[in-house]
Amino acid sequence: MKTVPVRLGDRSYDILIGRGLFDRLAPELTARGVGRRVFLVSNPTVFELYGNEIQQALQERGFQVTPLFIPEGERYKNLQTVENIYTYLIAQKADRQSTLLALGGGVTGDVVGFVAATFLRGIRYVQLPTTLLGQVDSSVGGKTGVNHCLGKNLIGVFHQPSLVCIDTDTLQTLSDRDFRSGVYEAVKYGLIYDPSFFELFEEKLSEILSRSSSGGSLLEEVIGRCCQIKAEVTAKDEKEAELRRTLNFGHTLGHAAEAAMNFLELTHGEAIGYGMEAACELSYEADLISSDERDRVRSAIRAIGPRPDVRGIPFERLQEIMKRDKKRLGDRTVFVLLKGIGATVIRDDLSDEMVRRAWENVVNAP
Amino acid sequence: MKTVPVRLGDRSYDILIGRGLFDRLAPELTARGVGRRVFLVSNPTVFELYGNEIQQALQERGFQVTPLFIPEGERYKNLQTVENIYTYLIAQKADRQSTLLALGGGVTGDVVGFVAATFLRGIRYVQLPTTLLGQVDSSVGGKTGVNHCLGKNLIGVFHQPSLVCIDTDTLQTLSDRDFRSGVYEAVKYGLIYDPSFFELFEEKLSEILSRSSSGGSLLEEVIGRCCQIKAEVTAKDEKEAELRRTLNFGHTLGHAAEAAMNFLELTHGEAIGYGMEAACELSYEADLISSDERDRVRSAIRAIGPRPDVRGIPFERLQEIMKRDKKRLGDRTVFVLLKGIGATVIRDDLSDEMVRRAWENVVNAP
Repeated sequence: MKTVPVRLGDRSYDILIGRGLFDRLAPELTARGVGRRVFLVSNPTVFELYGNEIQQALQERGFQVTPLFIPEGERYKNLQTVENIYTYLIAQKADRQSTLLALGGGVTGDVVGFVAATFLRGIRYVQLPTTLLGQVDSSVGGKTGVNHCLGKNLIGVFHQPSLVCIDTDTLQTLSDRDFRSGVYEAVKYGLIYDPSFFELFEEKLSEILSRSSSGGSLLEEVIGRCCQIKAEVTAKDEKEAELRRTLNFGHTLGHAAEAAMNFLELTHGEAIGYGMEAACELSYEADLISSDERDRVRSAIRAIGPRPDVRGIPFERLQEIMKRDKKRLGDRTVFVLLKGIGATVIRDDLSDEMVRRAWENVVNAP
Repeated sequence: MKTVPVRLGDRSYDILIGRGLFDRLAPELTARGVGRRVFLVSNPTVFELYGNEIQQALQERGFQVTPLFIPEGERYKNLQTVENIYTYLIAQKADRQSTLLALGGGVTGDVVGFVAATFLRGIRYVQLPTTLLGQVDSSVGGKTGVNHCLGKNLIGVFHQPSLVCIDTDTLQTLSDRDFRSGVYEAVKYGLIYDPSFFELFEEKLSEILSRSSSGGSLLEEVIGRCCQIKAEVTAKDEKEAELRRTLNFGHTLGHAAEAAMNFLELTHGEAIGYGMEAACELSYEADLISSDERDRVRSAIRAIGPRPDVRGIPFERLQEIMKRDKKRLGDRTVFVLLKGIGATVIRDDLSDEMVRRAWENVVNAP
């Protein structure tokens, strides 16, 4: 088991990473002062896979566990689901000493975190992410929130969990496509922060993608490095002033592409894959990386696997979406670019034409 | 003009109190780094009284001001109103540099604060409270939130404003009953924290209630002392661990009575008036204050004015509501009691019978 501490003063917490960790959840909760009243929030699919065992193990250790189901899918990541959870918590007499456990992917974590942040002006929650994307990205850093019908993640608040417990055995039940979706975000950390971590993907991608149990320690290493980087960035810049923005590498165009496809045909990771390629293209055009570096990044991203074709998205549609992006500064669209592999620079002065060219180069590539 | 600083590290802010302050809002905003894009949120009644002038004065100083209306009344303090504000903000392209101005009473301040806390993971807001209750209580301290159909203020989050600007001229347009409602909360600060401030009410209540313009400086003094006490308590205990709970003096039973009347027949202040009398009665029964002290408190509270009769509320109904109170610790109902005038003690060991007796003594008093 790896432990990655996230140092945020009186909001500090640990990320635990390892195989079979869900079985050992009870003592970890107790060690962190989590009270006996917990609500295990999950969708029915994930609950069926892990919920019963977690519930039983916790009950055996004296916890009073109430399961609470939310519907599956990004389209339920909204205020209505949040309100339903409030209602259930009130009906079940949850109080300020109660703790929410978010068992599932990014949607579950984001929704539960938002409820925990806003119920009774803030109660504790614990992240139990079961997707690679959740494990390397959304469960760490305290960003919580839901979508508004006019845009994704526009409603939200920072609220740090009391613990993130990543059981890497859960990765075995993911579909190939969902697993690969997480790998895109994992590669991102190497690109923006750590050249040697990027090289790990160049060297061992097929082993990572195989998810073989012999590769268990490799997965633990990959997830651990991602969490470490995210923890470092979050500790230095909790509220996304400047440094934390670098985590948005690939997200300006990637998020727009995802939205343009109505969050249906592209997974988040696939969209970010396209976005990272385009950002890399822009970095090359802006003389920030060499053509050799660009080619290395491009190959590494493409090797992760096939992605749906996005040539059908009109560039104007992407522009429109980027204009509403909450990461904008006034009238300008902000891009995170690479300055070599492992370092970034933030730019808001790229011409529409330059962005269009980069995007088209990427999506039309053979 | 009085300035009361609220010291909360990087979330510190000032409370300004004085006559005609709304005319001088622009430079105060600029001095605190508020950007030019502001949304002036209010209900139509309050906007008609002060909104146009504020909007014009800000526009003359280069601010881009968008008015945003919410319906009047506690029954609109809910997630639906919050969602409507989000929608409007998104449609009007509000971004992270935008600031919300909450012009109105406690409902407006609480709703706007909650939106500011949760829109784009937190934007700035400024409190412009126009009721005495808002000025001495809800606008200070960073508690924001809305009601759930199963209970008041169950949804909320701490989010400190960037500035609280209290123009005491607004008190001239309040109804007598609304003004008196605020006076109950003002007396509370003397009772829990400052005997000499309590004595001010014993000596000068009629002058305070007259709201005469000659009494302008007296009102400024009263509001200033309340804000100072709330600022001190908040600075020592932002998230309501122990000390800040003392501000709930009178609220356990008072809030329950308000809820039992469906928030219709009793104003918040009137309910707290009853609650404080009962808490005082309990303090006497628990040997924490003398009969003389009890009588002084009772007289001071009753002198504020007539209140609706609450003898019709069955005590069992109050108990039921107290059992759902978010301030509960597990199974016990928490009361703030007086330990003499100006000091408090928190008790969770009072028998139902004792509480019933205290309540009945108060509501059946001649």
